[in-house]
Amino acid sequence: MMEVRNKYVSIRNNIEGAPQESDFELNTEMVSLSVEPGSKDVIVKNLYVSIDPYQLNRMKSQSSSQNAINFAVAITPGESIDAYGVGKVLASGRDDIKKDDLVAGLLSWGEYSVLKEGSLLNKLDPMGFPLPHHVGIFGFSGLSAYGGFFEICKPQKGEKVFVSAASGSVGNLVGQYAKLFGCYVVGCAGSQQKVNILKEQLGFDDAFNYKEESDLNSALKRCFPEGIDIYFDNVGGRMLEAAVANMNTHGRVAVCGVISEYTNATVRAAPNMMDVVYKRIQIQGFLAADFMKVYADFYSRTLEYLKAGKIKVLEDISHGVENIPSAFVGLYRGNNVGKTIVQIADE
Amino acid sequence: MMEVRNKYVSIRNNIEGAPQESDFELNTEMVSLSVEPGSKDVIVKNLYVSIDPYQLNRMKSQSSSQNAINFAVAITPGESIDAYGVGKVLASGRDDIKKDDLVAGLLSWGEYSVLKEGSLLNKLDPMGFPLPHHVGIFGFSGLSAYGGFFEICKPQKGEKVFVSAASGSVGNLVGQYAKLFGCYVVGCAGSQQKVNILKEQLGFDDAFNYKEESDLNSALKRCFPEGIDIYFDNVGGRMLEAAVANMNTHGRVAVCGVISEYTNATVRAAPNMMDVVYKRIQIQGFLAADFMKVYADFYSRTLEYLKAGKIKVLEDISHGVENIPSAFVGLYRGNNVGKTIVQIADE
Repeated sequence: MMEVRNKYVSIRNNIEGAPQESDFELNTEMVSLSVEPGSKDVIVKNLYVSIDPYQLNRMKSQSSSQNAINFAVAITPGESIDAYGVGKVLASGRDDIKKDDLVAGLLSWGEYSVLKEGSLLNKLDPMGFPLPHHVGIFGFSGLSAYGGFFEICKPQKGEKVFVSAASGSVGNLVGQYAKLFGCYVVGCAGSQQKVNILKEQLGFDDAFNYKEESDLNSALKRCFPEGIDIYFDNVGGRMLEAAVANMNTHGRVAVCGVISEYTNATVRAAPNMMDVVYKRIQIQGFLAADFMKVYADFYSRTLEYLKAGKIKVLEDISHGVENIPSAFVGLYRGNNVGKTIVQIADE
Repeated sequence: MMEVRNKYVSIRNNIEGAPQESDFELNTEMVSLSVEPGSKDVIVKNLYVSIDPYQLNRMKSQSSSQNAINFAVAITPGESIDAYGVGKVLASGRDDIKKDDLVAGLLSWGEYSVLKEGSLLNKLDPMGFPLPHHVGIFGFSGLSAYGGFFEICKPQKGEKVFVSAASGSVGNLVGQYAKLFGCYVVGCAGSQQKVNILKEQLGFDDAFNYKEESDLNSALKRCFPEGIDIYFDNVGGRMLEAAVANMNTHGRVAVCGVISEYTNATVRAAPNMMDVVYKRIQIQGFLAADFMKVYADFYSRTLEYLKAGKIKVLEDISHGVENIPSAFVGLYRGNNVGKTIVQIADE
């Protein structure tokens, strides 16, 4: 029975606060490259894996008050970390997936993944696109952007849309979908370089560097003299408060993530609830998995936009399993532009 | 041309913080009891007027940051204060409303009201019910409870419902509608007497006195071991935070009012947005006026329940225009049980 040495990333300890590279370690284990008779296991060589901010919430101690959330499956120190990705099948006990197939699904931050029966794993037709597109724009980042914007925000043409973390994996796509739909779109990001990308490459109507603004409320008043109809929130905290203060009647806030609150449980958005009442604002949290029912629509529309060159794909790809920790830590330092992906191996 | 002296209540000054009786004064003016030819004015002798917490927001200085809300029409010191109520017509320039008709609409905190064309004013058939019912349960309090619960919360039978300020004008009806619909209902209130009313008279499954709870989070955990599906919020602040923390997946928060935040702009609810994301919680503000489209349903269903003795009407009625300030101030001291109404004159 042939075996290979699998290098994989794990956490050394539960993480509270901002993650550091020293919170992670590289482990090894032996993985069999054959599947037992009768088993439905699939053994995958990982090619590209997704690096997402929400993983931090799974790395926290389960006893920490902020993580008293029973749905985020905890990541255990020393153990493998599952993550969305694209790979190539080395061995399969499933009839619908064969050796050498490309697949997309819940792989891991390592060189190899063993997927048990029932795991999220689908055969992948790259449709002529680079494989990283199937990690990002065709993966949960794209689905979050599409579902969050169309299903939660229920936009009307001409509405004013604000997107935070707008150069991030989800935000940049929300802004592009919103522009293509016919909205006025302003994004915020954490550097002048990112602001330039939003305005010059992605077609945002306006953008600002929140780190240069002494008063977020004023910044939004300046960018939205007629108020905000839709706020796509990726950050929470003070930005959410300022957005609610600048919101129009019947405004909608789609809460995709609150990265400013992930590293510090004492940071909490306190939007003015009087605004929420009088302006009948809706604040709605969501997860990408809620939108599987619109996946076909999402996929066909996104494919069409991409083929027509109407969407620009922003990817931030680094290389090698040993660089996963720095890619992940970089998310919290604002290092990435677009979707953060680590390439594990050549195709 | 016959005139009468109209005594009415006004604010002496804009109010910040909790209202005091000394913030109000009784003024007089002369009101003509006849309508000019061609005018559509209606002159009404006020019988019962509604006393509602939200009026405080209209009394604040427009420059105060909390009141940078351009939809709450400001109340000006010295001037008459419009409020919902029931009265009798003394003179009318309208074809559809005659002298001696009973009417319900936007009257005022005074003895007489002059309603201009286009004002909210409808002829009233009391349907055999006491007139105060047409100020409270058939008025905006009832509509807020009905619309907020059915239209915003979209309940399912068997769901777990939490109502704050549950012995208040809206809360007590929400709890009763929810029980009649087949939900499990827990309310909180500010005294043991109120708690007893909720449990013994209104049929709530459980109730607690929030002033006796050192930890609201624990109180809700105790009352909702299986979590909260729907929170009907009348108070905001710490209670909203605790409700969100105890909410189930796909929980809904209908924000009717945030009385704990009205008197102190520094009190702000900071619900954990990670809960909002992971549990896909919806927080939705609303105003009763949004539900005019379901008024007919609301009216017929409420009428049926009342006739069948299935809803208990809780009213807190004081007498005389000069007692309006104490009735209003009492709302902020938790003095009222049920709907606060002032009777201005006998029928």
